[in-house]
Amino acid sequence: MVKVAVAGASGYAGGELLRLLLAHPEVEIGALTAASSAGQKLGAIHPHLTPLAERVVEDTTREVLAGHDAVFLALPHGHSAALASALPTEVVVIDCGADFRLTDESAWTTFYDTAYAGSWPYGMPELVRGVGQKQRAVLEGQTRIAVPGCYPTAVSLALAPGLVAGLVDPSDIVVVAASGTSGAGKSLKPHLLGAEVMGAMSPYGVGGVHRHTPEIEQNLTACGAGEVTVSFTPTLAPMSRGILATCTARLAPGADPAAVRGAWHAAYEGEAFVHLLPVGQWPSTAAVLGSNNVHVQVTVDERAGRVVSVAAVDNLTKGTAGAAVQCLNLALGLPEVCGLPVAGVAP
Amino acid sequence: MVKVAVAGASGYAGGELLRLLLAHPEVEIGALTAASSAGQKLGAIHPHLTPLAERVVEDTTREVLAGHDAVFLALPHGHSAALASALPTEVVVIDCGADFRLTDESAWTTFYDTAYAGSWPYGMPELVRGVGQKQRAVLEGQTRIAVPGCYPTAVSLALAPGLVAGLVDPSDIVVVAASGTSGAGKSLKPHLLGAEVMGAMSPYGVGGVHRHTPEIEQNLTACGAGEVTVSFTPTLAPMSRGILATCTARLAPGADPAAVRGAWHAAYEGEAFVHLLPVGQWPSTAAVLGSNNVHVQVTVDERAGRVVSVAAVDNLTKGTAGAAVQCLNLALGLPEVCGLPVAGVAP
Amino acid sequence: MVKVAVAGASGYAGGELLRLLLAHPEVEIGALTAASSAGQKLGAIHPHLTPLAERVVEDTTREVLAGHDAVFLALPHGHSAALASALPTEVVVIDCGADFRLTDESAWTTFYDTAYAGSWPYGMPELVRGVGQKQRAVLEGQTRIAVPGCYPTAVSLALAPGLVAGLVDPSDIVVVAASGTSGAGKSLKPHLLGAEVMGAMSPYGVGGVHRHTPEIEQNLTACGAGEVTVSFTPTLAPMSRGILATCTARLAPGADPAAVRGAWHAAYEGEAFVHLLPVGQWPSTAAVLGSNNVHVQVTVDERAGRVVSVAAVDNLTKGTAGAAVQCLNLALGLPEVCGLPVAGVAP
Amino acid sequence: MVKVAVAGASGYAGGELLRLLLAHPEVEIGALTAASSAGQKLGAIHPHLTPLAERVVEDTTREVLAGHDAVFLALPHGHSAALASALPTEVVVIDCGADFRLTDESAWTTFYDTAYAGSWPYGMPELVRGVGQKQRAVLEGQTRIAVPGCYPTAVSLALAPGLVAGLVDPSDIVVVAASGTSGAGKSLKPHLLGAEVMGAMSPYGVGGVHRHTPEIEQNLTACGAGEVTVSFTPTLAPMSRGILATCTARLAPGADPAAVRGAWHAAYEGEAFVHLLPVGQWPSTAAVLGSNNVHVQVTVDERAGRVVSVAAVDNLTKGTAGAAVQCLNLALGLPEVCGLPVAGVAP
Repeated sequence: MVKVAVAGASGYAGGELLRLLLAHPEVEIGALTAASSAGQKLGAIHPHLTPLAERVVEDTTREVLAGHDAVFLALPHGHSAALASALPTEVVVIDCGADFRLTDESAWTTFYDTAYAGSWPYGMPELVRGVGQKQRAVLEGQTRIAVPGCYPTAVSLALAPGLVAGLVDPSDIVVVAASGTSGAGKSLKPHLLGAEVMGAMSPYGVGGVHRHTPEIEQNLTACGAGEVTVSFTPTLAPMSRGILATCTARLAPGADPAAVRGAWHAAYEGEAFVHLLPVGQWPSTAAVLGSNNVHVQVTVDERAGRVVSVAAVDNLTKGTAGAAVQCLNLALGLPEVCGLPVAGVAP
Repeated sequence: MVKVAVAGASGYAGGELLRLLLAHPEVEIGALTAASSAGQKLGAIHPHLTPLAERVVEDTTREVLAGHDAVFLALPHGHSAALASALPTEVVVIDCGADFRLTDESAWTTFYDTAYAGSWPYGMPELVRGVGQKQRAVLEGQTRIAVPGCYPTAVSLALAPGLVAGLVDPSDIVVVAASGTSGAGKSLKPHLLGAEVMGAMSPYGVGGVHRHTPEIEQNLTACGAGEVTVSFTPTLAPMSRGILATCTARLAPGADPAAVRGAWHAAYEGEAFVHLLPVGQWPSTAAVLGSNNVHVQVTVDERAGRVVSVAAVDNLTKGTAGAAVQCLNLALGLPEVCGLPVAGVAP
Repeated sequence: MVKVAVAGASGYAGGELLRLLLAHPEVEIGALTAASSAGQKLGAIHPHLTPLAERVVEDTTREVLAGHDAVFLALPHGHSAALASALPTEVVVIDCGADFRLTDESAWTTFYDTAYAGSWPYGMPELVRGVGQKQRAVLEGQTRIAVPGCYPTAVSLALAPGLVAGLVDPSDIVVVAASGTSGAGKSLKPHLLGAEVMGAMSPYGVGGVHRHTPEIEQNLTACGAGEVTVSFTPTLAPMSRGILATCTARLAPGADPAAVRGAWHAAYEGEAFVHLLPVGQWPSTAAVLGSNNVHVQVTVDERAGRVVSVAAVDNLTKGTAGAAVQCLNLALGLPEVCGLPVAGVAP
Repeated sequence: MVKVAVAGASGYAGGELLRLLLAHPEVEIGALTAASSAGQKLGAIHPHLTPLAERVVEDTTREVLAGHDAVFLALPHGHSAALASALPTEVVVIDCGADFRLTDESAWTTFYDTAYAGSWPYGMPELVRGVGQKQRAVLEGQTRIAVPGCYPTAVSLALAPGLVAGLVDPSDIVVVAASGTSGAGKSLKPHLLGAEVMGAMSPYGVGGVHRHTPEIEQNLTACGAGEVTVSFTPTLAPMSRGILATCTARLAPGADPAAVRGAWHAAYEGEAFVHLLPVGQWPSTAAVLGSNNVHVQVTVDERAGRVVSVAAVDNLTKGTAGAAVQCLNLALGLPEVCGLPVAGVAP
């Protein structure tokens, strides 16, 4: 059994990590830590985690996190580097925050307000990196992994096959994505109150200012089709979980529309979690809720000259905690799917 | 008092018409007609319309609709022409369906399955048609008016100011819009069941096949900036009402980003229902629920070279029945705002 | 025109008051006051109140509230007495809070933590007080009125007809009510976050500790059938607005089940806002949303020997702000329905 | 591996069975059958069951169901008896429908419209049947088991400890329960449409006519405290899943209120799925979503003389499919928790 600690256990990402770890056959759950809720029983914070209800949350310190085989960090950005540096290099550290995702320091400093901490291997195994190449190869056996952001997960998996195959133009990508409100975390802000959220669709971070923008661009630029600048508009949807990313890009000059489906099919054939749906069936966040799945569908709008690719993920599962556990499996040499839910909770 | 009949009173559009007409000081509600629910009391169909609970729904026939000063048609497409031709030309007929919206027969036959019926004056008073020109001028005193579709209302009002002002490029417009499920009507389809809808965001009509596409293109092309082909992706959101349309277009070559806000401001200054929000405040469907308002915000994403304009409307009010009543007011020479709600129902 | 101020304009009750006052033909909206949000534009707090978006919220002081014909107080309990005493007795003061609802000081001190302030005429016009008697008679021309609580509105109107008619036993009344989360106000508490609320039904204040308990008992005891002690369990439902109160009481010994419907019918015949639905049709919160209506249905479960009466109201409209405006109308001698919505916003 | 067939795979209960069976380590999923959707791929019916997307649904016939070690029946009532009689007695048959739940033929014929089929061992292992006795003992090794109804699961587990301990009076039990709309099944009825359901709380089957009434009474009467007649009011809540049952009963004459918590504690101590929450923490449907857990809390309202016990379950998991899998485990001699989720999916 692998002994695992979760730092940031009181937040939504931390709670989802624990839900998944409870079902993981190779994991023993060790220390659970948090900041302001240290000292409380977990049952008062996450009543859904019944088997852990009596566990007491501890302070997030090096001492508490010591003595584990793996540590998940689910903290606000800016807090991971100091903790990680205190953990031995042979301990697997999986960071669910943004701190180690960006390889370009200037991108970090443009979008974040804390010091650049460098980058770790990027934890999106299914991301195509070239013909026949996936990010997975980079992750096996690593002991430091940065879990991707929730929006970048949906958007990158939706578009990368077309960029790698040269079928879409990298220069004019437009993404509008809807997220459940758990994506905003457990923040006590008036606009996140239930009475405000229900019945409400609204955009935020419009105009290229959302922090996931450079991460999306980093992933898509790495596909090799050219520098990507994305017009990214996130919206808040009246649901607890889920991201639906509607991604459109111009069909590349001279590209054959008929080749599009084949490229996406080839990219995800055999993947356990990323699924190109049958022709005519479009993704729904409800179908992936609570699972580590990504549902993708793609079509060509020949009138408008655009490829439209839509991906649905659960922002807390594949968008955060599920990806983190998947990375743990790769780090430890376990089967990649070990302990991860392959079916959604619907209706 | 103007005696008004509603044909199609049992559907969502019909119900919303009646809700608004109940509060209209110049209207007396006459015949209510429907197809399969004829003979029922309205209270069994629309329990929210308490003052009309005892009214009996009649069959939709020429005889029942005769003897009114105005008739609203809220019928599936293909049914309006025959009814309208049977009504005297001095009777005001406001069609909430699609039948008379498109001026181009070939666009109609590409997207619809019934015979082309011609076009009527298009009932979107606030639509800019040129510098200082609005569609309103066309509508005053008309006795046949086609109410715009719900998506075209949000999208056209979001983008027209930029096209008329020459600030956005007409050639590469991308729209992703979210709609509450009442937009699909009272259709007994499994994917519209509450258990399926709650928690679910999903796209439909992807790839340029949604019937509102040619109507959007017609409106935006009429702005004079050139032929518009839109990449339009509608999505279904887990809410009863509301449309949030996220509309992006390339900044026109040589256009000054600083001029964008001014153009939108000029377009809607003084409008009773269409409001450009203060800088930094983005529209939410919750804020316009049940009102005839359109909330618009616009910004320029200079990194991506795109203008992003977002509009929120209630699909049943300004998106259908509110626009219809507004058109009735214009047709009759009443104040345009007469009887229409200017505040949303929130939270 | 009556010049009206709203103290506590930034909360949900204050916002709903303003929505209704905007549609009231005899009212001019004067000062809007609040505590922490004083100095902000109303559009930033209540984006749905579009016509008031540019109005600036002022501090809640005697000076600001002076010079109005009527003042609505929508404040946390304990704040109304001091403000009210500073307003001339000829100014109409309508208190939406709890401060002046209870006539029994010991009931107040058992359930509240501030000093007892006395009681004002109780603003529930439709409440039956004896055969052929309604609370309405007490309210006409008053200048100090206490608006009922939202739960007591639904529960009292659901049960009073049976108690007055002697058809139900006052000694064993059980009420379980569901409320939308706006009932909890705009409180920044984790369990009210959208992500927590959606999909969640949960009880609170269980075991007779909810503050609306003594108000319900006061109303029902006044029906004259005997001292009422109610078992009241409120629950939080995943919706923004609405209360559904399921109220059951033993059929009184010797009472004729067949007389039940007649008693309820007689109580509400001719009422503008309280409606006994047709046999077989049960209330839904959706049907009264945004309206001042109360929908009631009653039946006898002869197997269990209980009368079951269910009422639906919108907690913010008839449950708070609508009742307040209705009381204003009675205080001023206006038609009781003046400016109040008689149809719900559905679907 | 146990080869398992699911008859009625296209409905919500069938879908949930398959979700759970996919995670069950001892089960191989065999035939999936349905009526009108036979011939379709499962991915078109249940897009969340990704690993089974290519499986084709077959007709529900004896031949198709033959050759399995266990068969789950998830059919409308009235269809199970004929199918079950065609299966060998050594095949485990678990019926998720109502057909074999009631031991009293007259209760069946009062509430159902098909012929009485007899009764099978009742699949609620945690139900206390006397001091120190649980229903579990009856179920081990059985090959015919009737899965309890969803409401009876919540209500019976909420109240049985008090009845067995003689602490509550059996003669005046009042239950009001809220259910997510999946409880109504995948029925194409207007009131179940998403646009109608969101924002709506409404009762149904009021006055003792809901079919789960006799099942609740059967379970509670078997506790030995006397004949139970329950006043049961189910309500429909705006959520996909979950039941919150608020159950109240008079404190028995002479009973010690201080003994209540102890009785409930003793009943569920050591249970894997039924949990009495810590004092002050009340159940929420969100906390048990997707899990096989039951969260219970109980208190005494001494003012009203009533015990209030509230239980939350997921109607599709512990309320149907989870209980069915739990019964399969007992039938086969597997650990009772095998393959069942012990944590909810929240937020």
